[in-house]
Amino acid sequence: MATSIEQHLDEQRATHLEELCAFLRIPSISTDPAYSGEMVRAAEFLAGMMRDVGLRDVEVIPTAGHPAVYGEWLGAPGKPTALIYGHYDVQPVDPVELWETPPFAPNVRGDDLFARGAVDDKGQVFMQLKAIEAHMRTAGALPMNVKFIVEGEEEVGSDNLDTLLHERADRLKADVVVVSDTGMFAKGRPSLCYGLRGLTYLQVDLTGPASDLHSGVFGGAVDNPIQALAELLSTLKDRHGRVTVPGFYDAVVPLTEQERAAWAGLPFDGEEYRRELGVPALFGEEGYSVLERTWGRPTLEINGIWGGFTGEGAKTVIPARASAKISCRLVPDQDPHAIAELVERSLRANCPRTVTMQVTHLHGGQPWRMALDHPALQAAGRAMTRGFGVPPVYTREGGSIPVVATLEAMLGAPSLLVGIGLPDEHAHAPNERLHLPNLWSGMRTIAYLWQELADSPMG
Amino acid sequence: MATSIEQHLDEQRATHLEELCAFLRIPSISTDPAYSGEMVRAAEFLAGMMRDVGLRDVEVIPTAGHPAVYGEWLGAPGKPTALIYGHYDVQPVDPVELWETPPFAPNVRGDDLFARGAVDDKGQVFMQLKAIEAHMRTAGALPMNVKFIVEGEEEVGSDNLDTLLHERADRLKADVVVVSDTGMFAKGRPSLCYGLRGLTYLQVDLTGPASDLHSGVFGGAVDNPIQALAELLSTLKDRHGRVTVPGFYDAVVPLTEQERAAWAGLPFDGEEYRRELGVPALFGEEGYSVLERTWGRPTLEINGIWGGFTGEGAKTVIPARASAKISCRLVPDQDPHAIAELVERSLRANCPRTVTMQVTHLHGGQPWRMALDHPALQAAGRAMTRGFGVPPVYTREGGSIPVVATLEAMLGAPSLLVGIGLPDEHAHAPNERLHLPNLWSGMRTIAYLWQELADSPMG
Repeated sequence: MATSIEQHLDEQRATHLEELCAFLRIPSISTDPAYSGEMVRAAEFLAGMMRDVGLRDVEVIPTAGHPAVYGEWLGAPGKPTALIYGHYDVQPVDPVELWETPPFAPNVRGDDLFARGAVDDKGQVFMQLKAIEAHMRTAGALPMNVKFIVEGEEEVGSDNLDTLLHERADRLKADVVVVSDTGMFAKGRPSLCYGLRGLTYLQVDLTGPASDLHSGVFGGAVDNPIQALAELLSTLKDRHGRVTVPGFYDAVVPLTEQERAAWAGLPFDGEEYRRELGVPALFGEEGYSVLERTWGRPTLEINGIWGGFTGEGAKTVIPARASAKISCRLVPDQDPHAIAELVERSLRANCPRTVTMQVTHLHGGQPWRMALDHPALQAAGRAMTRGFGVPPVYTREGGSIPVVATLEAMLGAPSLLVGIGLPDEHAHAPNERLHLPNLWSGMRTIAYLWQELADSPMG
Repeated sequence: MATSIEQHLDEQRATHLEELCAFLRIPSISTDPAYSGEMVRAAEFLAGMMRDVGLRDVEVIPTAGHPAVYGEWLGAPGKPTALIYGHYDVQPVDPVELWETPPFAPNVRGDDLFARGAVDDKGQVFMQLKAIEAHMRTAGALPMNVKFIVEGEEEVGSDNLDTLLHERADRLKADVVVVSDTGMFAKGRPSLCYGLRGLTYLQVDLTGPASDLHSGVFGGAVDNPIQALAELLSTLKDRHGRVTVPGFYDAVVPLTEQERAAWAGLPFDGEEYRRELGVPALFGEEGYSVLERTWGRPTLEINGIWGGFTGEGAKTVIPARASAKISCRLVPDQDPHAIAELVERSLRANCPRTVTMQVTHLHGGQPWRMALDHPALQAAGRAMTRGFGVPPVYTREGGSIPVVATLEAMLGAPSLLVGIGLPDEHAHAPNERLHLPNLWSGMRTIAYLWQELADSPMG
């Protein structure tokens, strides 16, 4: 009797865990040029895994930045084709002293695998690979065609992905896009995500005196760039959680009553959420619930600030410069470029003439949303019900996956966001982890997805 | 014929420069524990120089922090005794990449000697030593008695100096205190400083979430400690240059009409001052001139700020923490502890309950002022007129020398601040320097000072 997909996946768990750890050991930090060699090593490793699971025409594709990796299996003529997207680059690890085990020494504690990239996104790329392998090893074929592209610049704005996708638009043609870079609503609550926030990211640098000044000798005679920056940043948001940049909300599509009602019905314990995050109190836009604030409303955050003396002790200096990184999470139909312009215009309008300002637009991505009754989304819902043993909840997410909007525009195909991350898995922070039971259920879900989609009408 | 003081000092210039450079090469950074060995080395080097110039009972005095160095010459019974104060510790050198030559590799360019500590305060300590030597080498004696104490913790708040001074209060008794750690009004305008601002220095740390959060997943649901800090810092000062901490100005002694008139008569080119500092515009308390703002009015500065992602590129994080260093320059009769309390109270009153706040009082020093018609000040004026060839201007300074208030309280003796620093010599900043002609005139001035004070009434 032939091995079933379920049996195969169960038998391979130890091997899979070992192989995933090898992948996670490679420090593929895309934002830091010091790691560019590791990026190449990660890409080659991934290409090797693609070949091993049975993908064909596997190649490491050079770009102006970090390479992408591509593989495909097109042995099901007449059946639909899916384009799978993932990324193998990871976030920086600082502050590294807060990690309980080193970020690139994967470590299993209980049911969790700790490592940078465990959930975002190497673990989920690995889940896709092993679902393909499950069909190949048991049936010798997939129920439909797949193309798999994995980029190395997701955490730095996917600058070269658009070029690469457009150069290969013909080859990448697909009926549906599948992305595994999102989260589950909660442990035991598998989810299908039908909306993502966009992003726009800026840096502002204020310069006052030509060099740092003695605050005794000059204190009182010149403006302090840190003071000016603090005042400037205070003009961007108010204590009602509203972004106060003029025009910021103009393009926002309001949440529907249906969405608000559905989300209000999800189990959500605000006090537990607060306790898990460790904040003294939650804070956000008045008139909206936490899920509405994070899934369906735009926001503005200061991601970093620096200036002057930041060492131990006391240095009495008026600094020459002060800088901040600012980003906005966007919802339909806000445009990243337009919002960056609005933020810059607001900063310039409020900047005192005692300092000079430089504003750098770092990167951006469009927000995205899919119709809830789309047949592909329904097929994914059936696959997930089989894979996890419970029907999924339909969610939106606060994060950004710019490629989703790009691929939808380029291919005219719907996107399915099938993610297995948990809210407390510390993506982008110290002690990133992946809940292994979700990895195993996720592999089954994706294997079933190819069966469910093989016979579904596509939009 | 005996060599004159002037002749001796002229002949020794090359030797003096060489010896000062050796002193400056020792990186005596008191704020950084990594340099504690260098602090000991600097103290030993200084003790050697004291012995060489003819001081007696020279000793390196251990403290709970960095050692102090002491030497004396008491061979003029019936004559007054001066206590000379200086410090051999220096400020940190960051940002080190802005130095044109390395901070601890002294380099003469034109008439200037570039090195950390050149003007603040090793160069001025050296000036005092060589003025003593000039009397010893030419007359074999000083016209009056001197005690010379040099500490190693001036740049970190002189934490152990008070204990040391009080333990040796009997031995340190003096009729007049001489401090060389201040500046000249301008090149060619030697100055006697009769007032100093005090200081109080705090650090504020805000904590939000227990660890850094993904700004996509959580953006909109929690307060951002950087945002909260920016808003909090904005409450401390307004765009009229006024500190808005309640009660901040309550103890301030207003400037006298005499002072305001005298300072208004000093040559001061605001546009040149602005250009030298490299600021787009000057900024300060409305209703006061630049000299009044820096010499006679209190101020509040943010000396440093940090939080979140501060590296290259874009990291979408809501940081767990954000911090700032804040200091106030104080004028009579503001008290450092009372002002620190007021600032902390204001911060606490304005801190939102969405973050937790820690306030650390780092250090402080009392403001100080001396009567303009004091005979010791008049004697110093005559010495300076002889040393520089022009009469001095009477100034106040914006910086803090907490020891002045301490010594005055302890000894009941007046203090003379005979300093040779120029406003553009980058004390506390990259490319610190000392104008060598001022060093040579300063040595003569101090040598004459012992002659002028020897026969002056004190107290």
